[in-house]
Formats: sequence, structure tokens, C-alpha cells
Amino acid sequence: MIENGFNITIVGFGLMGASYAMALKKFHKGKIYAVDIDKESLLKAKDRGLIDEGFVEPKEPLEDSKLVIICLYPKLLVKFIEENKENFQNNAIITDISGVKCDYIEKIDNILQKKADFVSTHPMAGREKQGMDYADANIFQNANFIIIKKENNKKENVKLIENLAKNMGFLRVTKVTAKEHDNIIAFTSQLTHAIAVSLVNSDDEKFNTKLFIGDSYRDLTRIAKINSELWSELFLENKENLIYRIDNFIDKLETIKNALLNEDKDRLIKEFKESSDRRDRF
Amino acid sequence: MIENGFNITIVGFGLMGASYAMALKKFHKGKIYAVDIDKESLLKAKDRGLIDEGFVEPKEPLEDSKLVIICLYPKLLVKFIEENKENFQNNAIITDISGVKCDYIEKIDNILQKKADFVSTHPMAGREKQGMDYADANIFQNANFIIIKKENNKKENVKLIENLAKNMGFLRVTKVTAKEHDNIIAFTSQLTHAIAVSLVNSDDEKFNTKLFIGDSYRDLTRIAKINSELWSELFLENKENLIYRIDNFIDKLETIKNALLNEDKDRLIKEFKESSDRRDRF
Repeated sequence: MIENGFNITIVGFGLMGASYAMALKKFHKGKIYAVDIDKESLLKAKDRGLIDEGFVEPKEPLEDSKLVIICLYPKLLVKFIEENKENFQNNAIITDISGVKCDYIEKIDNILQKKADFVSTHPMAGREKQGMDYADANIFQNANFIIIKKENNKKENVKLIENLAKNMGFLRVTKVTAKEHDNIIAFTSQLTHAIAVSLVNSDDEKFNTKLFIGDSYRDLTRIAKINSELWSELFLENKENLIYRIDNFIDKLETIKNALLNEDKDRLIKEFKESSDRRDRF
Repeated sequence: MIENGFNITIVGFGLMGASYAMALKKFHKGKIYAVDIDKESLLKAKDRGLIDEGFVEPKEPLEDSKLVIICLYPKLLVKFIEENKENFQNNAIITDISGVKCDYIEKIDNILQKKADFVSTHPMAGREKQGMDYADANIFQNANFIIIKKENNKKENVKLIENLAKNMGFLRVTKVTAKEHDNIIAFTSQLTHAIAVSLVNSDDEKFNTKLFIGDSYRDLTRIAKINSELWSELFLENKENLIYRIDNFIDKLETIKNALLNEDKDRLIKEFKESSDRRDRF
């Protein structure tokens, strides 16, 4: 078991990177560095005690870190690893937070070879706002944490990441393959965002909608305020799974529509009871 | 202006009826009666100081009440008014809380003739749980309140209902016709429930979904736990509007699906920016 005294570099200091720093600072004994192109954010983060030191150039902190947590968009993640391959410590542990996995895990393993161990993860937590000013360690409390099963990972490194996640407040740590991950995440994460966006955009705006909403509309549309650049990447990188999930969802919605057309109250009640039972199980 | 000292009867003492009683008790000087078939609930309500007296038979409290708030399902609402026509005070004000309006407002006006004034309303607040044990006056805080515009209502009675709503904590009171109400509510309320139910029911349950959800799935499915009897009535009574809204929503979701099929990132970004802008306006 590696001790708690090693240094960590967080790459990309937006909402997630800064929330990671806040959560880690509470228990981690080693130094926490941040790498970002925004110098001002780094200064603010150091002032507030979220990090020990901020860097615009990654070489120095990477060479001094056992663990590197990359909080960049999927495409930039691969680019960063490619460009900094020589800067990582030998046997460093590299991890990420991306919402899709299949498309680039192999690419990254091919870049790194045996230089460092890439343990890919997906913390199921976030906010609809962007930037370190909205960062909050509490978003991880009782959230789900997913680790991607890879045969080439060192067991002790996976264990280290799992322990960090639990210390940060995550409740359940689950291990699945990249393929399984992208399949289920298309449903719980990408489909939900596609629905929220479509709901808001299907408003014909004949009325001042704001005056007619209750909690249900508010809940269903919170995530319609969406980071376009990030989510268009995630959608496209997982498009086959997402299309499959959209089709299944539309089928179910058409079941309700057909029940309405046929005035089939029993069918509606059947659908409502099914969803109530399923929702109760969470 | 009618003074604050008149008596009120709440008919149907479930979650909404009991929440009304709680909110009214804070400022209303007249007596508050409740009518329900469940004797035990009425005793509990009186014990807890939510009401002055509970009744299984409606005659006595109705004869003693200037205002009657009927918190029953739409179909039972009409039946109750039919059966108690002779028990209402002359010039009583009768109001309701139903989620659809067109189907029965005329029916009720025809039953009542000029005996009492039916001021129909829709408080946009609720809970996914049922029963007086989950009642809470706070659900009305800053919520929307809708009053149905009807030519035969007395202005002073509409004003009285409006004042009560504001005193109960509602933020905005909006007046629209029954037709306008059912049109917009099909979108903000019934469509959202149809979506939540369909989302949960489209889960192929290949995985233990609970381990892979974040806040977005939790938010979008909260209302999938749904009162089957009430909502199947609401859906069917507003089916034309709801079918229209389902179709528009599916169109928008298919826009996203087609963008995925065509790998059209610009189109995705356009949809995401549109929904973000719209959501920001709330």
C-alpha cells in the first residue's frame, strides 16, 4: 500500500478539478498541485488554500507527482497525455473523470505503454455551472464512483484510487468494463440530458411558461442548461449507445401516447405502477 | 371586501387538503373544517390543531362555510358538487385544485346555477407522496397559482381567492381561460410526468442502475413515482393537448438523434445553446 504522503497534480482547474482539490485537501497529506491555462484561477486557488502550488506549464508538477488527476474534456485528455508522456514519473498513476470511455482508453494505453498506469474513472457528480467559483467538495457526498476494469492496471493502484474516492465522500465504488460503462451511462446520463434539452426546446412559447411551472418542470429542466462543447463531445463519442437508448425511450413514450389515443386507462395505470415500483427501488 | 372571519370547509383531507389547512391556519381567523371519509385522519388533524372540526358527513360544515375548497380528484369533484348542491350556503364560494379544467367547469356551473360561485384554481405545488402525514405548508412558498378566468365569477370572490393564495405563500397568481390552462399545463405538468415514467420504464435493467446514477437521473425520475389513479384521469381528460405536446417533444428528441446519426456537432451545439438560453430565463 502506498502511503498518503505522495503528491498529486490536478490537470484542468474548472468546477470538477477544483472540487477534487477541495475534497482531497481535507485528508490528503501530500502536496496538491494544479495545472491550468488560467493563471488567475491558480492564484485564487492557492490564496484560498485549495492547492499548494499552481502551474501553467505541467512539466515541473508532473515530475513531482505520484498521482495525476486529469479533469479535461475527453479530446483534450488524450492530447495532454500525448504531449506530456515524458513528464510523468515512471510508474505514475494517471486517472481521469470523463463521461465516456471506449473511444480513448486504448489510445491512452498505447501512448503510455508501461511508463504509467492509466486507471480510468467516472465520478457521477457535477453541477450545471462551470468554473472553480462553483466548486464544492460536497457534490461528492454519497455519490456513485465508477472505476473502469482494465486487465493491465496494477491492483494496488486501483485500490489507491478506490480509497481516495471513499475518503472524498463517494458512497459506492463500482467496477465495470469500458463497454459496460458506456452502455449504461448512455441511459443514466446522456439520455437524461437529451431529454431535458428536448423538453425545453419543444416549448412553443405561446405562453409565459415561467408562470405555469411547478417542481416537476423545474426538476426535469435543470440540466437543460448545459455545457455545449463538453456534451456534444460526449454525445458523439457514445452515439451508438445513445441512439439505442433514445429509441427505447421513444417507444415507451409512444406506449403512453397510444394508450391516450385508445382511451386505455388500464394501460396507463400499468405504466404508472411499473415506473412507481422501479423508482421505489432506488 | 369579505372579512377574514368566515368559515372554510376543506373537502378531501389528503396531502393537498391537509397542506391547505396548515397554510390557512397560520393567518385565517374563521373556523377551518375538514370533510373526509377517513375518520382517523380527521381526529389526528384536529389533535394536531390543523382543523377546528372534522366531519364524515358534509352537510353541517358546508352549511356553516362561506368558502369550500374541494381537494378531490376531478371526477369525484363533480360528483361531490352534484350530491351537495343543496348543502352549500347561498352565494358560497367553491374552489378546487384540479390539474385539468376544460372537461368539467361547465358541468359544475350547470349544476350550481346561481346558487354558488365556482372559482376554479390550480395551485402548482405538490409532492410525490400521498396522505396527510406528508402535508407541509411550505410546498406553497414561492409557487405559482393559477385562477381560471370565467365571466360569471364575482370579482370580489376572485379577489378573495387571490388574497388567500398570496397569504398562503404563493408568489405569482396568473389568470387564464380553462382552454389556455389545459394547453400549457399539458406541457409543464402532464408531459413531464409522461417523460419521467417513460424514462424509468425504458431501462432494460441489464445493470443495477442505482450504481450508475447521478443527480440528473435522480431529478428526472423523482415524479416517476406517481399516483396512478389521479394521473390516468388527468392524462385522459387532457389527452388532445398532451398528445400534441408528446409529438412536439419527440420531434425535438429526433433532431438530436439525427444530429448523432449525421455526426453533426454544430446542430447539437445549436440545440444545447437554445435550451441553455431558455432555461436561463426562468
